[in-house]
Amino acid sequence: MRTRVTEMFGIELPIFAFSHCRDVVAAVSRAGGMGVLGALYFTPEELEMELKWIDDHVDGRPYGVDVVMPASYEGADFAPEELVGRLQGMIPDGHRAFVETLLEQHGVPPLSAAAEAGKVLLGWTDATARPQVEVALRHPIALLANALGPPPADVVELAHRHGVKVAALASTPRHAIKQAEVGVDVVVAQGTEAGGHTGEISTMVLIPQVVDAVDVPVLAAGGIGNGRQMAAGLALGAEGVWTGSLWLTVEEADTPAMAKTRILAATSRDTVRSRSWTGKPARLLKNAWTDAWEAADSPGTLPMPLQFMLVSDALRRIGRSEAAELATFPAGQIIGITNRVRPVSDVVFELVEEYVEASERLDGITRS
Amino acid sequence: MRTRVTEMFGIELPIFAFSHCRDVVAAVSRAGGMGVLGALYFTPEELEMELKWIDDHVDGRPYGVDVVMPASYEGADFAPEELVGRLQGMIPDGHRAFVETLLEQHGVPPLSAAAEAGKVLLGWTDATARPQVEVALRHPIALLANALGPPPADVVELAHRHGVKVAALASTPRHAIKQAEVGVDVVVAQGTEAGGHTGEISTMVLIPQVVDAVDVPVLAAGGIGNGRQMAAGLALGAEGVWTGSLWLTVEEADTPAMAKTRILAATSRDTVRSRSWTGKPARLLKNAWTDAWEAADSPGTLPMPLQFMLVSDALRRIGRSEAAELATFPAGQIIGITNRVRPVSDVVFELVEEYVEASERLDGITRS
Repeated sequence: MRTRVTEMFGIELPIFAFSHCRDVVAAVSRAGGMGVLGALYFTPEELEMELKWIDDHVDGRPYGVDVVMPASYEGADFAPEELVGRLQGMIPDGHRAFVETLLEQHGVPPLSAAAEAGKVLLGWTDATARPQVEVALRHPIALLANALGPPPADVVELAHRHGVKVAALASTPRHAIKQAEVGVDVVVAQGTEAGGHTGEISTMVLIPQVVDAVDVPVLAAGGIGNGRQMAAGLALGAEGVWTGSLWLTVEEADTPAMAKTRILAATSRDTVRSRSWTGKPARLLKNAWTDAWEAADSPGTLPMPLQFMLVSDALRRIGRSEAAELATFPAGQIIGITNRVRPVSDVVFELVEEYVEASERLDGITRS
Repeated sequence: MRTRVTEMFGIELPIFAFSHCRDVVAAVSRAGGMGVLGALYFTPEELEMELKWIDDHVDGRPYGVDVVMPASYEGADFAPEELVGRLQGMIPDGHRAFVETLLEQHGVPPLSAAAEAGKVLLGWTDATARPQVEVALRHPIALLANALGPPPADVVELAHRHGVKVAALASTPRHAIKQAEVGVDVVVAQGTEAGGHTGEISTMVLIPQVVDAVDVPVLAAGGIGNGRQMAAGLALGAEGVWTGSLWLTVEEADTPAMAKTRILAATSRDTVRSRSWTGKPARLLKNAWTDAWEAADSPGTLPMPLQFMLVSDALRRIGRSEAAELATFPAGQIIGITNRVRPVSDVVFELVEEYVEASERLDGITRS
């Protein structure tokens, strides 16, 4: 297949796969697409190890790294060394009590070792994401993507000096225009049906508007889980597709077994756009956790990055407990169509095969 | 163009256009698609006049009628002659006071003639929609569509006895299966981005699931405003598209000038899914009215059909006032791309032209 993005990156297929799992990233790149590793959950040292592993398993194919550098967040003016302490001080006691009570109600035990607790900030801020960027640029990555709006102009420049292309996720045409202005090479236009941080406009409505608003190539994100959806994304004017939830249930994914089972069984109505994970609206698997934050006794969510600082230990405790009903993670509406476990190579093959079928069908409709 | 629905109805283009305006309905059918008149706002006598006009202006081309027969609503067990009175008694005084205060705050005067008030129920119930069906079946209609779930089985049979095909709107695969079971001939799978009553699943995610779930042909609805979106809908497996908001701003539309102006200026973020119109979630133009029902002092909305009974006079008063900020009507997210007034024939021509371009582009991507 040939589009502006296959040309830009020297890849065979305009399929971008976001995943926190290095095995998935390497497998998609080896299959002719472009794997993109989500760096968020890794310390700089951990990220270094993950990228080293990918370098050793990607057969020289291009891959990318995705960081989270939000354009705005609480504490953006604090000095890095006092950032965590000052942000911790901004979390109300009532919110901490609400979380603790919720965990108690569901029988979630505390973490066994104190050392496990406190990994509270991750890459949610400029200060914590920059070291990840520095690590990433020491590896032969082809793409640096930013998941929350336009990356800082100096980061774009830095990436370009390393010969690395830059992408950013946009949920409105206005966002896309701003991103093009700071020099991104690719805009990922993401509809509301996507997992993770997402806006209100659907992929069907958003993509043509973004394609018409910017000159750089656009990837369609949100709702892309099979080849018909890939064909639809490209029919809307995108040069490729950006996929995420699709890879949570592949053979190679290190998704916890409990989560995999729930995703395989879920329908497209089992997700919800909620601030209960990070403080900004993100589409998550709908469950007792997301319900609790909407209930009458909820104290309401806190702004980014305070909400994640508030809940990060709780989410880790839930992950190690039997309280499957509280296990919370980003998931797009396409989890309604992922209902069996397949290897990455099969998923990629079927995307292309079904794309070709859809394309031939469209053609036949006007020829007959 | 040729699909299962063009064959079924003997039309040239698989483009269905929902409109409350008879001029639009006739113009779309004359242009080779299928106009579908929304009967909701008409008494049986008014509907008779509208359909007579269409019969005289449609040049023998097929057209359809859309009614609202909700599968469930408050008062479904009441006898028709006491329905309105008993439902009126179920509306709390606090809700009436909230509406009156809101109108006063925005300087909306009362209706000048008492006779204008009280057209409160319309076709929101089985009892009020059936006379509309009877009127419709006295005309040479080709399609009877139901906007809120599966139509009653006897209505499907009645239509079939008249040689009229039946369609129903579905927002989940499960709805679609139920509709196929009662014998509908066409399922309109409608994504959350659509105007009017709508579910949570996006068009991109919904269409392939509905296509895989039922044997009858599927129309893609929600987010279809240009030819790229039409191509995307058909790439997803639909046999045609069902459009609505697209026709609010055409030359032929009798949309009030104030509303037309606001739609032309709106972005795709200026709609909201709200219960403030009918009691069931419907996507509306976001404004001071929808905001008021979400505000801290809102009494909350009432179930269908009580909410519309509560607000119908208010909406009529607003429509005759200068309070444009309260004017409330269904609108899909594609109002962000409708930004100029064109005749129906131009819109239809551009849908087809852009469809062909998108189809050729998809084909070129795999050939090169």
